[in-house]
Amino acid sequence: MDDRPISRFPVPALAHLPEDLRARILAVQEKAGFVPNVFLTLAHRPDEFRAFFAYHDALMEKEGGLSKAEREMIVVATSGANDCLYCVVAHGAILRIHAKNPRVADQVAVNHRKAEITPRQKAMLDFALKVAVDSASLDDADFEALRAQGFGDEDIWDIGAIAAFFGMSNRLANLTSMRPNDEFYLLGRLPRDKSRS
Amino acid sequence: MDDRPISRFPVPALAHLPEDLRARILAVQEKAGFVPNVFLTLAHRPDEFRAFFAYHDALMEKEGGLSKAEREMIVVATSGANDCLYCVVAHGAILRIHAKNPRVADQVAVNHRKAEITPRQKAMLDFALKVAVDSASLDDADFEALRAQGFGDEDIWDIGAIAAFFGMSNRLANLTSMRPNDEFYLLGRLPRDKSRS
Amino acid sequence: MDDRPISRFPVPALAHLPEDLRARILAVQEKAGFVPNVFLTLAHRPDEFRAFFAYHDALMEKEGGLSKAEREMIVVATSGANDCLYCVVAHGAILRIHAKNPRVADQVAVNHRKAEITPRQKAMLDFALKVAVDSASLDDADFEALRAQGFGDEDIWDIGAIAAFFGMSNRLANLTSMRPNDEFYLLGRLPRDKSRS
Amino acid sequence: MDDRPISRFPVPALAHLPEDLRARILAVQEKAGFVPNVFLTLAHRPDEFRAFFAYHDALMEKEGGLSKAEREMIVVATSGANDCLYCVVAHGAILRIHAKNPRVADQVAVNHRKAEITPRQKAMLDFALKVAVDSASLDDADFEALRAQGFGDEDIWDIGAIAAFFGMSNRLANLTSMRPNDEFYLLGRLPRDKSRS
Amino acid sequence: MDDRPISRFPVPALAHLPEDLRARILAVQEKAGFVPNVFLTLAHRPDEFRAFFAYHDALMEKEGGLSKAEREMIVVATSGANDCLYCVVAHGAILRIHAKNPRVADQVAVNHRKAEITPRQKAMLDFALKVAVDSASLDDADFEALRAQGFGDEDIWDIGAIAAFFGMSNRLANLTSMRPNDEFYLLGRLPRDKSRS
Amino acid sequence: MDDRPISRFPVPALAHLPEDLRARILAVQEKAGFVPNVFLTLAHRPDEFRAFFAYHDALMEKEGGLSKAEREMIVVATSGANDCLYCVVAHGAILRIHAKNPRVADQVAVNHRKAEITPRQKAMLDFALKVAVDSASLDDADFEALRAQGFGDEDIWDIGAIAAFFGMSNRLANLTSMRPNDEFYLLGRLPRDKSRS
Repeated sequence: MDDRPISRFPVPALAHLPEDLRARILAVQEKAGFVPNVFLTLAHRPDEFRAFFAYHDALMEKEGGLSKAEREMIVVATSGANDCLYCVVAHGAILRIHAKNPRVADQVAVNHRKAEITPRQKAMLDFALKVAVDSASLDDADFEALRAQGFGDEDIWDIGAIAAFFGMSNRLANLTSMRPNDEFYLLGRLPRDKSRS
Repeated sequence: MDDRPISRFPVPALAHLPEDLRARILAVQEKAGFVPNVFLTLAHRPDEFRAFFAYHDALMEKEGGLSKAEREMIVVATSGANDCLYCVVAHGAILRIHAKNPRVADQVAVNHRKAEITPRQKAMLDFALKVAVDSASLDDADFEALRAQGFGDEDIWDIGAIAAFFGMSNRLANLTSMRPNDEFYLLGRLPRDKSRS
Repeated sequence: MDDRPISRFPVPALAHLPEDLRARILAVQEKAGFVPNVFLTLAHRPDEFRAFFAYHDALMEKEGGLSKAEREMIVVATSGANDCLYCVVAHGAILRIHAKNPRVADQVAVNHRKAEITPRQKAMLDFALKVAVDSASLDDADFEALRAQGFGDEDIWDIGAIAAFFGMSNRLANLTSMRPNDEFYLLGRLPRDKSRS
Repeated sequence: MDDRPISRFPVPALAHLPEDLRARILAVQEKAGFVPNVFLTLAHRPDEFRAFFAYHDALMEKEGGLSKAEREMIVVATSGANDCLYCVVAHGAILRIHAKNPRVADQVAVNHRKAEITPRQKAMLDFALKVAVDSASLDDADFEALRAQGFGDEDIWDIGAIAAFFGMSNRLANLTSMRPNDEFYLLGRLPRDKSRS
Repeated sequence: MDDRPISRFPVPALAHLPEDLRARILAVQEKAGFVPNVFLTLAHRPDEFRAFFAYHDALMEKEGGLSKAEREMIVVATSGANDCLYCVVAHGAILRIHAKNPRVADQVAVNHRKAEITPRQKAMLDFALKVAVDSASLDDADFEALRAQGFGDEDIWDIGAIAAFFGMSNRLANLTSMRPNDEFYLLGRLPRDKSRS
Repeated sequence: MDDRPISRFPVPALAHLPEDLRARILAVQEKAGFVPNVFLTLAHRPDEFRAFFAYHDALMEKEGGLSKAEREMIVVATSGANDCLYCVVAHGAILRIHAKNPRVADQVAVNHRKAEITPRQKAMLDFALKVAVDSASLDDADFEALRAQGFGDEDIWDIGAIAAFFGMSNRLANLTSMRPNDEFYLLGRLPRDKSRS
């Protein structure tokens, strides 16, 4: 068991949280079986917690041209590029579950060029990684490469915005030394996990 | 006049926006005399708009150990490191106004080591820039350097979180090729602007 | 199942291999339950295969001041820095088994500063990573930092030589697009694996 | 007012300067209304002062295929890439005046891809920035890209030589911590400045 | 005469070496007229010495589509990129002898784009340098560029494996501060050296 | 013999040059026995030629705290960092002659940390290389490190200004693909060259 602190900063007790935060956290716990540490870490700042998860849900829970697995691929690939332990481990688990593939998260975290993904998904990650590591150089050719794979403008916004949002999230996790929950490391790696997705 | 598009993506007409977005935009226009393009660009996605400005306000409008000018310094310095035109120009204007200094924004955008700032502010920007460009390498020594300048834990969270939030904002602006309003370029550069702060 | 090719280059049939290579491969299969793809990929060049594994064994199977888990930590951390999928996945499995810790491989692959390791191990990985990514800048201070943690000269050679050897190995795996065996992804992640070490 | 020293090194009194330096400085003061600090900083070394301004004038005051505004664009873009405060601020002013555009200097200093410039000027700055940050990689394709925009060999020499000369100038300004004169920050930003060009 | 230590680590006396190492060293001395310091440095670890030279010979002494001069070009170019003094100086000498060209080693060590080599050799070095400095980004287009110059798969393996092997060798030399023998600096620079190849 | 063009740009015939350029070139030829190609390449632009060599002489021919060998060390080390073939080869020759050491140029071009130089010279090159590759980060600690080795302010200006000037020179040589004269490769490598210094 990893018994290091969850965060460099104070972590509030559930009982002391505003009602809406506590409700959200209990709902997550009900669904996942544990409370991911990002909720406890960010609860130190309730207003930022609310904005963070509102933004997260707007990008990750919506319908659209990208599947849930594809959204998580973007998270894992860009978090790997930003060397963010929490996000690679936690979203790696979610990616394995949505993709029903126990290997793909480790693959895109290390090198998406060697991953079991489609050419369309590789183009998507090429763009997302450029947003993550060199957004100032984005130009028309980058947008054309996505359109050539059938992505529309709304998809492109999603790809770029998810990469941008986790650019923030990765920095917050590195700032707080946010510790991944032990549960994430194994989630989605065993056949029985398939029933979770 | 810069008459290029405000954004690579569609920009909705004010009349078609949800009421809360329109109200926020009209309030900004009332105060500033124009509508900063970030509001129009992000209005393409109302839910993301709401989360973005809720987060922004939670970090930038709060009380705390950092002055308003110092918060804006973090924005301008990290936006310079990320080569984000919109944020350098728009927040440069806000920084000039709050700092009552017509030069400091250009200075921290180019090289904070050569800026008219205090050693405490230089340490603050050193930390913010590490969050912006190499957050994975943050370690205890970086936190000690801030504490040695009198920053408390809540200040450090603020510094890091502002750098992280604008890490996202810079990437969104580069993704959308967000155009700075002409007004920002001159704001805070003339003596009469002092009355605005 | 990942059914992509094992290597960009031809992979010889076991029956066509020189006797010593076949014997080595069968011995590994006997012990591990499968043939790691690095053996099949490098068998394309028998002389290089022999030299590679002789070197590997000289560094990784020897006695000395570094535990087996520590040697594998060096492999996983430097392979992460070199974005080498095969080595992160395969040696991640071996590290989990030797360290009897199902999390530590993912941790050092992404960011050793956030890993459940001792300060001595952190210093070891700092040095190994400098060998991996900026060996020309090694100077006396780097050696002093290891000696301050109790490492002797033979340990330092081991740390540096393992980082150097996997600098080669990572490049060979990236050259050949060497595919990690499916088995590695899960090895050492479950309690029952503890009996393997 | 920025009342920090002009330079880390001694700044000679005008009265003690060799006659030719004093004459040059007085002529500049007559024209600009103030003495740009680069003249005072470099006057510490009269022979280097003479060579520096002879070189500067040979590149910047000549006739040729590049307009004065285009020459200054090269200076501002490469000085931005080199994080040189003095050159961004001082040549930003000159660029605004020559281009009769109060925004373009801030734009090319931060990110020329987002600037109000022509495709020809963008190609010019792409080349200049490659000279500034990675000149060893220049190859035929870079020259072809300029020729495709109608630049002749003499223009290409000019573009490359200006980028090279300010590569030196930026390093001298960073070495000496050369302080931009307060006047530069506002020059060319107001309508009445149009009469100056 | 450079009288600094050969290595940061102990260098064994010839008399104390295992017979096979001593034989190899004496054979080299017989042929070259001196003992290159890499033999003495690595002799500190006899098993690693044996594996290192077995690997070296498998890659550098074999027949195949690459000439001896071309193999050494790869060594010198990648060692230059890795800032490895021993390898640039020692293999620079061997390259001059095999290429019968007293200039080409200095050229490829500094910048292969400016070297007296064929377009085919430039493509070979482009690929080798990508293996050396960014192997994770290798993709199909890199292989196609070599095939377009007539390289077959076995040649490509050779190019990549030599770059990978010297990736290790450069790191070992930087780790040990391996000193180049004085003799190497001049070898192959004079007309009479032509008779050596 | 390297019979490639001297420069990508036109090289004027000696007979067509202005008298002062021709005189300078003939004087160099008289002294060196050949005309270094930098003179012919830059003669394409007489005014720039004059300024370039006036600047060069002001920095390299002056008296002061740095020996001629030390000045050339700065040139060779920074030219190595900038991958400039002409400057490494031509100034490497001059360094060998002044230092009366046939090895030191190759050493500082590849890695000054491994060169036969004094700790004072290593500090000098550390500073020069920071000017060459990251001048924006120069701060007080860099100046203190030089003062701790006994360098005065005039020496520091010299070190920084030489690094800056060759920052320009390297870029001009890379722009023009300036070819080193064959003679430079061997100069200063043989005992008899000692008489030249």
